[in-house]
Amino acid sequence: MQIIRTINELENFVQNASGKIGFVPTMGALHDGHVSLIKKCVSENETSIVSTFVNPTQFLPGEDLEKYPRKEQSDIQICEQNGVSAIFIPDANELYFEDEPLIVAPKKLSTILEGKTRPGHFDGVLRVLNKLFRLTRANSVYMGKKDTQQLIIVQNMIKTFFLNIELVACDIVREPDGLALSSRNVYICDEDKCNALRLSRSLNKAQNLIQNGEEDASEIKANMLEVLEPLKVDYVAVTDRNLNEISKVEKGNTIILVAAYVGKTRLIDNIWI
Amino acid sequence: MQIIRTINELENFVQNASGKIGFVPTMGALHDGHVSLIKKCVSENETSIVSTFVNPTQFLPGEDLEKYPRKEQSDIQICEQNGVSAIFIPDANELYFEDEPLIVAPKKLSTILEGKTRPGHFDGVLRVLNKLFRLTRANSVYMGKKDTQQLIIVQNMIKTFFLNIELVACDIVREPDGLALSSRNVYICDEDKCNALRLSRSLNKAQNLIQNGEEDASEIKANMLEVLEPLKVDYVAVTDRNLNEISKVEKGNTIILVAAYVGKTRLIDNIWI
Repeated sequence: MQIIRTINELENFVQNASGKIGFVPTMGALHDGHVSLIKKCVSENETSIVSTFVNPTQFLPGEDLEKYPRKEQSDIQICEQNGVSAIFIPDANELYFEDEPLIVAPKKLSTILEGKTRPGHFDGVLRVLNKLFRLTRANSVYMGKKDTQQLIIVQNMIKTFFLNIELVACDIVREPDGLALSSRNVYICDEDKCNALRLSRSLNKAQNLIQNGEEDASEIKANMLEVLEPLKVDYVAVTDRNLNEISKVEKGNTIILVAAYVGKTRLIDNIWI
Repeated sequence: MQIIRTINELENFVQNASGKIGFVPTMGALHDGHVSLIKKCVSENETSIVSTFVNPTQFLPGEDLEKYPRKEQSDIQICEQNGVSAIFIPDANELYFEDEPLIVAPKKLSTILEGKTRPGHFDGVLRVLNKLFRLTRANSVYMGKKDTQQLIIVQNMIKTFFLNIELVACDIVREPDGLALSSRNVYICDEDKCNALRLSRSLNKAQNLIQNGEEDASEIKANMLEVLEPLKVDYVAVTDRNLNEISKVEKGNTIILVAAYVGKTRLIDNIWI
């Protein structure tokens, strides 16, 4: 596996790469959720690239940019063990320029849900991915459903910028107790752990209700909020696959999303129906 | 020559194109200025694509979007005569989506000069070119120095988005009397013609002064303003090649730019020193 730290090295690498190029963009601190993306990427492409970059432009002032977990040695090891062709660990100073065009995520998709609490977050996500997609010359990109809104906004950019990239949406990986894997889970102390489980349990509740015939979004949300008690809930939403709020669940075209604070940590989770 | 009107056709065309792809993005109403770009593009690339698209997103409300000259038959003929491989005449409804990311040109470069009178103009330029560059899979793009600020902003996008495209800056083509060719020259009535010449004459004046040893930007601008009298001048600027205002001309790194109204028509011109 090549460990690549400069754009020049990356350009040389992709120029000499053979076959289809698969790409897994991450912020590092790789966990089993990432590993599932990496495995899929490696199995489906001759060349596989993983980037680990804590992208400063997608953090808002006051967010956890500084304390976001960094685990470079472990990341390199995980990539190597999983047969990745190259890990790209870029330098923000090389990726960003003092004067460069900004990308503004489409309002309709980016000012709701996560965008309400994190204005500008998705602009930063698109800004870095637009560069990384081009630099890696990815044919396919692997991203997790954990960040479903991100997934949908990136899919929108791929389509509307005509990037000719296949976006592969991968299922959420959970701990045995149901907690969706996240690099931010390290922030959760032991006594908060059972409260953190309320997110996945609220989604299980929703799924059970739907399996038993419930279709009404308000009813489902009310039941979820009961499970989430006493957490400070940011949102519970029932949407279609384009993130439009819907009042009635439609199987195959519904996403149920939740964001809540566990202590000071904001967690998100969702389920595709 | 292929006449291409849909994105699907264009994608098929570039997939089967051989060798280097050169691209000339235009708004149609092709004149000899465009022809010089087209000739260079055809001579330097195995495959050459010209787009003619009056891009609505780069016009401000109240600008001349509706009356901007359209000459499709003549455009097709000119491309054919000059050995172009394909002319792309896209449909705005296929190129743009209701919800898509916007591109915001870098403030420092886009809020000065043209950007002062035309806020948002360069955002629209980058928005369409980002799509067209990708769709045409251009290796080289040919643009005129007539729109020097546009050239510099597009160069910035190519560099900072890592587009891996060579931008070829082509010299301004002028009528024998000095008037820089522009599709908007059709707006100038005969009696305004000699006033329109004041722009190129003011630049000639600047060049003569510099050839005679003048280096002081204020002095040069004052002399230019005399030549421009009685036109309503929007700006006269002496900048380096990155559009930073400079007080002293430096040969090989200076651009002198002028924008002025001739009747109701706003004309621009410039000279690279």
